Amino acid sequence: MIWAMIPAMINALTLALLLAGAPGSLKPARAPQPTAQILSTAPESAWQRIVDDDVMVIVLPDGRRVTIWLASGFAPVHVANIRMIARAGWWDDATVYRVQDNYVTQWGDATEKKPPAPGINLKPPAEYDWPASTHAITRNPWPDAYARVTGYSNDGWPLAGDGKRQWLPHCYAMVGVARDMAPDTGTGGDLYTVIGHAPRHLDRNIAVVGRVIDGMAVLSSLPRGTGNGLGVYEDAKMRVPLGKVMIASDMPAAERPRFEYFRPGTPDFSRYLESRANRQPPFFQVSLGAADLCNLPVPIRPAKG
Amino acid sequence: MIWAMIPAMINALTLALLLAGAPGSLKPARAPQPTAQILSTAPESAWQRIVDDDVMVIVLPDGRRVTIWLASGFAPVHVANIRMIARAGWWDDATVYRVQDNYVTQWGDATEKKPPAPGINLKPPAEYDWPASTHAITRNPWPDAYARVTGYSNDGWPLAGDGKRQWLPHCYAMVGVARDMAPDTGTGGDLYTVIGHAPRHLDRNIAVVGRVIDGMAVLSSLPRGTGNGLGVYEDAKMRVPLGKVMIASDMPAAERPRFEYFRPGTPDFSRYLESRANRQPPFFQVSLGAADLCNLPVPIRPAKG
Repeated sequence: MIWAMIPAMINALTLALLLAGAPGSLKPARAPQPTAQILSTAPESAWQRIVDDDVMVIVLPDGRRVTIWLASGFAPVHVANIRMIARAGWWDDATVYRVQDNYVTQWGDATEKKPPAPGINLKPPAEYDWPASTHAITRNPWPDAYARVTGYSNDGWPLAGDGKRQWLPHCYAMVGVARDMAPDTGTGGDLYTVIGHAPRHLDRNIAVVGRVIDGMAVLSSLPRGTGNGLGVYEDAKMRVPLGKVMIASDMPAAERPRFEYFRPGTPDFSRYLESRANRQPPFFQVSLGAADLCNLPVPIRPAKG
Repeated sequence: MIWAMIPAMINALTLALLLAGAPGSLKPARAPQPTAQILSTAPESAWQRIVDDDVMVIVLPDGRRVTIWLASGFAPVHVANIRMIARAGWWDDATVYRVQDNYVTQWGDATEKKPPAPGINLKPPAEYDWPASTHAITRNPWPDAYARVTGYSNDGWPLAGDGKRQWLPHCYAMVGVARDMAPDTGTGGDLYTVIGHAPRHLDRNIAVVGRVIDGMAVLSSLPRGTGNGLGVYEDAKMRVPLGKVMIASDMPAAERPRFEYFRPGTPDFSRYLESRANRQPPFFQVSLGAADLCNLPVPIRPAKG
């Protein structure tokens, strides 16, 4: 019953906003600072370095980079495969072969004939969702069409849940494992990232294994394919070579991409959410007092020093 | 109060689903047909031709077309301006000059110095929202972070509302009027379309004047700009000429784009929504029983004959 789900969404942030603002309003009593200011003035302790073993880098032949943060705490078997696939050089001749508008950019083995990378798990478990008690969630207060609960894990990932199960949502730039019809779960050899409005209907049906944290425009601005209504490049010449794919911890220290995430569960993170939900003048005249999960990405910045 | 808003969202479709499915479940008793089958077998009466005066066509120098359906019933002053701007040939030397990843592609006068097209309203009213009683809404049953009510007008547009006001939402491919800081409302000379996750925080703050119904990939796959964090092309050479911009009713009959929308409020449209919210095997194993407004676009097809 939809209306029975809603009280569970009311969390500390909402209550604080309700108490601070006018009766029945979600607007805070004082205008929030602009997001950029919140992020730039937060203490160093509000940021956490992403570990090198969870960072994968695609270096295209032209030198452009795409950096992906791997969700090793949520899809460990798929992520272990992905590290092995990268380390085996299996993606050296891989390509981007599918770009479907308002949906996904997908890469891997366009031939569908290459033997799998040695040693990987050919039938990973369905790492699509897990018991709701698995990860503590810093909750968003606003309703969501697809989930009773939305928010963040303490280690920087968006989460959705229904009280029984919990999962990673298909927001923009999230990375998933392409697969055949169920019960196939995909090995990780073919991956995609979301390039349009969040296709949340994929949630709980696919292993989400990461997030593009830098270089997303490389993947989002490719020509759209037309094949079979799925955006597959019908002409093999359109395929885009990936170049080299590496795990950051295998790279020389000076070449490793180094990023930090803004830590959910901190007062600064709550202020970030509040600022996103309450846009301010001079541009905004109406503040909607709400925002949805995929418009509230965990902020990422290059690590300093 | 969030929980007080929710019962108002329960509409006939939800009740039908609740009654048909298991207790407390939003899943229908029978698996819905696939969306493609619903659309292809619907009677001709389920489709409505879009009138030529509400269709604007951009014909790029390379011959590719972008077709925009104008929301004349919702932002009439801005749309009247847009028709005049097109008919004056004011956009003949216009360009796409801004492409911000996961946000918007914007076009118009990159120089910001061109005199306005003759005769247009230089200060249109803020056609951002209107009384909730203005348009009947065929409601979606699922909650939304930004609006108490979401659904569709009978003439084929997505709508959101809070019980007092009503507005067009910033879904993928919707077209809005770029403007300066409030109280400026924009003339329509500079327009943008959404190329990423729906930036619904723009709702009620900008005039939404249309929807790209064909050729969206032309605008979504352009290189992203880097200027000022806003995606502006810093190098003027990156600007993409629009070519010719015409209103369909001014074109020779044989050249006019002719499209139809799937009529909201019909039993077929309800079945369409149901199919989107309840994805089926063999690909899907978990049906979420819900969908959000921007993942439920009004279907469009080329007109027959």
